[in-house]
Amino acid sequence: MGKQFFFPSDSYISRRETLIEKFNSKQILLLGNEEAGINFADNWYRFRQDSTFLYYIGINLPSLAAIIDPAKGETILFGDDASIDMVVWTGPQTPLQELAEKVGVQKVLPYAELANYVNQDTAYLPPYRPEHQLKLQSLIGVELRQPSAELILAIESQRSVKSYEEIEELDKAVTLTAQMHEHIIKSAKPGMYEYQLVSLASKFALDHNANWSFPPIMTTHGETLHNHNYSNQLKENDLMLYDGGIEVASGYCGDMTRSFPVNSTFSSIQKDIYNIVLSAYKRAKLLAQPEVLYRDIHLKSCLAIVEGLIELGWMKGNAEDAVNAGAHTLFFQHGLGHLMGLDVHDMENFGEELIGYNNEVSKSKEFGLKSLRLGKKLQTGYVITIEPGIYIIPMLIEKFETKGRHTDFINYDEVKKHVDFGGIRIEDDFVIIESGNRQLGNPLTVEADGIEELRGG
Amino acid sequence: MGKQFFFPSDSYISRRETLIEKFNSKQILLLGNEEAGINFADNWYRFRQDSTFLYYIGINLPSLAAIIDPAKGETILFGDDASIDMVVWTGPQTPLQELAEKVGVQKVLPYAELANYVNQDTAYLPPYRPEHQLKLQSLIGVELRQPSAELILAIESQRSVKSYEEIEELDKAVTLTAQMHEHIIKSAKPGMYEYQLVSLASKFALDHNANWSFPPIMTTHGETLHNHNYSNQLKENDLMLYDGGIEVASGYCGDMTRSFPVNSTFSSIQKDIYNIVLSAYKRAKLLAQPEVLYRDIHLKSCLAIVEGLIELGWMKGNAEDAVNAGAHTLFFQHGLGHLMGLDVHDMENFGEELIGYNNEVSKSKEFGLKSLRLGKKLQTGYVITIEPGIYIIPMLIEKFETKGRHTDFINYDEVKKHVDFGGIRIEDDFVIIESGNRQLGNPLTVEADGIEELRGG
Repeated sequence: MGKQFFFPSDSYISRRETLIEKFNSKQILLLGNEEAGINFADNWYRFRQDSTFLYYIGINLPSLAAIIDPAKGETILFGDDASIDMVVWTGPQTPLQELAEKVGVQKVLPYAELANYVNQDTAYLPPYRPEHQLKLQSLIGVELRQPSAELILAIESQRSVKSYEEIEELDKAVTLTAQMHEHIIKSAKPGMYEYQLVSLASKFALDHNANWSFPPIMTTHGETLHNHNYSNQLKENDLMLYDGGIEVASGYCGDMTRSFPVNSTFSSIQKDIYNIVLSAYKRAKLLAQPEVLYRDIHLKSCLAIVEGLIELGWMKGNAEDAVNAGAHTLFFQHGLGHLMGLDVHDMENFGEELIGYNNEVSKSKEFGLKSLRLGKKLQTGYVITIEPGIYIIPMLIEKFETKGRHTDFINYDEVKKHVDFGGIRIEDDFVIIESGNRQLGNPLTVEADGIEELRGG
Repeated sequence: MGKQFFFPSDSYISRRETLIEKFNSKQILLLGNEEAGINFADNWYRFRQDSTFLYYIGINLPSLAAIIDPAKGETILFGDDASIDMVVWTGPQTPLQELAEKVGVQKVLPYAELANYVNQDTAYLPPYRPEHQLKLQSLIGVELRQPSAELILAIESQRSVKSYEEIEELDKAVTLTAQMHEHIIKSAKPGMYEYQLVSLASKFALDHNANWSFPPIMTTHGETLHNHNYSNQLKENDLMLYDGGIEVASGYCGDMTRSFPVNSTFSSIQKDIYNIVLSAYKRAKLLAQPEVLYRDIHLKSCLAIVEGLIELGWMKGNAEDAVNAGAHTLFFQHGLGHLMGLDVHDMENFGEELIGYNNEVSKSKEFGLKSLRLGKKLQTGYVITIEPGIYIIPMLIEKFETKGRHTDFINYDEVKKHVDFGGIRIEDDFVIIESGNRQLGNPLTVEADGIEELRGG
């Protein structure tokens, strides 16, 4: 059972009206999420409502669906109230009709009625949970048509631009996220295990009656980009990388990364690399503003990394040529950032190509750029992350060197002196405003000195 | 990614041999679980392997399947090693072939090969996750046959009887579970919120590099049987009910409940009701032994509750007649307990009727008994919970009284003086042995005095 948070009912009414203005050719089916069984049907993971359902319908309960009918200008909620037998197990529940009124929906019908309202023309979104696919099969037929790209684009253009009330929630989520990071940076000690820090981060979230927006990366092996192993012991001279975020009751997310030394101060090379990543972060922050292609910000931030690594002697040659050739991908393999909102990767379930790209800029298939989730022009109201990093991945170095890749730009002998380096990433969240951008939440230091101060160094 | 725990490879080989002895008519398909997306495909809940897959194949990783072929006496593991591109994201992975050897499986094939091995005759288990259903549809066809009841019974008869090495793991899980309960009982204070105790319980589990075996019930409203709301503040005179368990790395579970006063001591009526529940718990513990119907133990424990409530003046008449009439279900609505093992409700995904009942005893449809998950005869090696309770559910009292139910046995006027009582449950875990039963783990006190001592009373 999710927590119940509601914006004023007018917010939901106006969101649905906007959607109908943008997409009025067909009726729209929005499927809420179901409880998800872990190892049997009734042993559940924490319930998470579908974000699009939450955005337009707002009710944070399982087993709901909605039809928005542009022709009739009507929204119908489908769902079933708990029977008296169920109440023994669940306790008294607020009737659906009452919840529907909170989001400005008048008409509530039993879930079983949904089948009578869906037809072959009904537009729906891509199913990202297998339960959605089964439901769509039973409602629409086994041979599913493609989800409606027009509907996706209508919703995307609306959800991308955050309203004032959404920004308030995002500020809350990011402020809590920053506090969680500060707590972890201050608490880590040599001899601890990564899972003990995960435990502290979990306690921080739960003590605030909040949840994580995604399973955290908490690792002394930051070079493993999506590391969900927490079994390593923190040793002196290790670098810790912590990528974690809070989701507040409204469903809005924070997403931050800090990298810090297990010692109280960075080693000389750790600080050098840290400052190169920081220069990439700062360059991106400076460039993020309306009408700029996020892909270009990504590439400028890659350039900052290459310039720093040339100065350090790990790379060589002309920095712009190196970026054009993709030589930086030996060190910075992922994208600079992504949209954020109700989802930590906002609307990723609609498909990255439709969300992060458009006619003007299409997704690259090249190593590095293919992992950039967002390439198109920024607009006022977009919420984005900026998260450059440098990662020393021994298998990748071996692969690149064996294939003779980028020998004009990479000093392999220098790099290989540091194969145990690990990885560094710095990440914060920003809203694009007319004059550029504003960092969300109460900022946590990104300076190497500031990090060392939190570590007691 | 799950934690990797392995029994010796001989254990898995011998388990599969036993299965082939019991079921050799068709080849057997075991589907492992997939990562489960929360709000988009790549934002995952914690991975939990399917318990049957874990039991026979032992590898705690997503996207695997196995075919056990009784005719050839062969097991094939289907799965794909991470590509070099994947290794950038996941870090170096142990090759599947190496993991397969740890569980005595020689043959490993790419997942895509599975379709060539499954045929219309292949036996499979009921899909409890929607992803299983989609996979079976694509492997076997949209019109799924019934899962194989013979296969379920063969597996059930094997998984029900725990081996020595399994009991060792269960002892570990229950000992940690008891320690978690002791921590919570000692930590609760008036003014705290339920979610802060959930946070402490989570920290206890994560600090031991373990997880919960199910989302906990942590509530001042114990009368709501499956309460997953944690928003109430603990007030003096409240009763807390905490039902929670640990799952250790091997996947084995603990499941315990304690009820305790938010004050340092029980009130007089709280202690009276507590001791009635305790008498039901003790009667069940005394009776639990091989060849006894668990349904009869349930009913004897209901009798203890009725006897106690008659003495208290909440019930009246002949206790046995009251139980036969089902009058106790106003206070004790659920079943006495269930099988436990790799699943907290062991093998519930196979269907309760096939797991808890048989030709000798079938499941009742009556209120109360219909919630009893286990009715059949106990056998040496079964692991069960014993968890009687008394719950004052205002809506149920109103319903029973309005319908004039059990007026010969219930003193409604007495009961209604205590509509705000809440609920009490006491639960521990036991393995059935030849001479009766043995409690699993290091026991935590169940005596009212002992609970008060932990509360500092």
